[in-house]
Amino acid sequence: MSSCDFEHLTETTVGVKQIFEGRIINVHVDDVKLSDGSFSKREVVNHPGGVGILAKTPEGELLFVMQFRYPMKKLILEIPAGKLEKGEDPSVCAVRELKEETGAECCQPVFLGSFYSSPGFSDEMIYLYYASVTEMSEATPDEGEFIECLRYKVDDVLDMIDTGELIDNKTVTAILLARQKGFI
Amino acid sequence: MSSCDFEHLTETTVGVKQIFEGRIINVHVDDVKLSDGSFSKREVVNHPGGVGILAKTPEGELLFVMQFRYPMKKLILEIPAGKLEKGEDPSVCAVRELKEETGAECCQPVFLGSFYSSPGFSDEMIYLYYASVTEMSEATPDEGEFIECLRYKVDDVLDMIDTGELIDNKTVTAILLARQKGFI
Repeated sequence: MSSCDFEHLTETTVGVKQIFEGRIINVHVDDVKLSDGSFSKREVVNHPGGVGILAKTPEGELLFVMQFRYPMKKLILEIPAGKLEKGEDPSVCAVRELKEETGAECCQPVFLGSFYSSPGFSDEMIYLYYASVTEMSEATPDEGEFIECLRYKVDDVLDMIDTGELIDNKTVTAILLARQKGFI
Repeated sequence: MSSCDFEHLTETTVGVKQIFEGRIINVHVDDVKLSDGSFSKREVVNHPGGVGILAKTPEGELLFVMQFRYPMKKLILEIPAGKLEKGEDPSVCAVRELKEETGAECCQPVFLGSFYSSPGFSDEMIYLYYASVTEMSEATPDEGEFIECLRYKVDDVLDMIDTGELIDNKTVTAILLARQKGFI
């Protein structure tokens, strides 16, 4: 399949209006020219990308963090995750976030895949990893980061996908990919 | 597990600064009070939510759409998907988007789950469905929407997850959930 087959789908930028430069996201609204010569607007949220890491303890339990997610004003159960620092290797970021949020040390993580979270409006990409925990110590979350580390058995986690208790997309993807690859 | 156990994780809004009201997203930056009495800022993108639908033809092929995603300036292969209209039932939206983007009519779709795409900065929730195609006719995409419908065999689609050819999170989640539930 040649990319030329889809040339008629591409859009060309004809103008950029900066809206917001934040600590985490940048927002701009662009004028684009479509392949039929017409024009449209695109609302874009730039995000540096992030990582998520599914980690299994020697006892066969999976590590999760419970966290207040302000956009929904809800507590959400997720795999340990975090934003990429500028230029940071995603696997290094994954090991760092796992340690900070749960206190777990791990072997070299296995890459499960990288995925766009919301390709309609954002360029955020999430890199997902699986790792075996070698040692547990104290969590050292960032200042102003309040999280609780929880452990669940694999069977319970699979049930929690079915019952709708796990509602974070990266978390569910990491679990299903790790399951498919035989890690859990 | 009582939600009281996590009361120390919650954040309280003390100020809201509207940044942008767009056609698709709204952006605001809020001042929040954390449980230790300190203050922080939260950058939030509100999104109406969306649907994605994995559809299988009577020949056992899965329907995808190739689409230019402006935030990445890349062509991305995804399941048919779209934004929820205000008050719209997600399953009705899924059937509508499938028909518009691929021309496929389907039986009542099966709900696979609903997931937050990017809970760190956005409240976007994606409702995922699986459906069997009953009939194919002409696609009728929205004005200014340029997409190509493609069909792949299930085994090829599973390979495309492994090779990193499928990089849209909702698409991969829908495929893995449908696989786990025995639909594909």
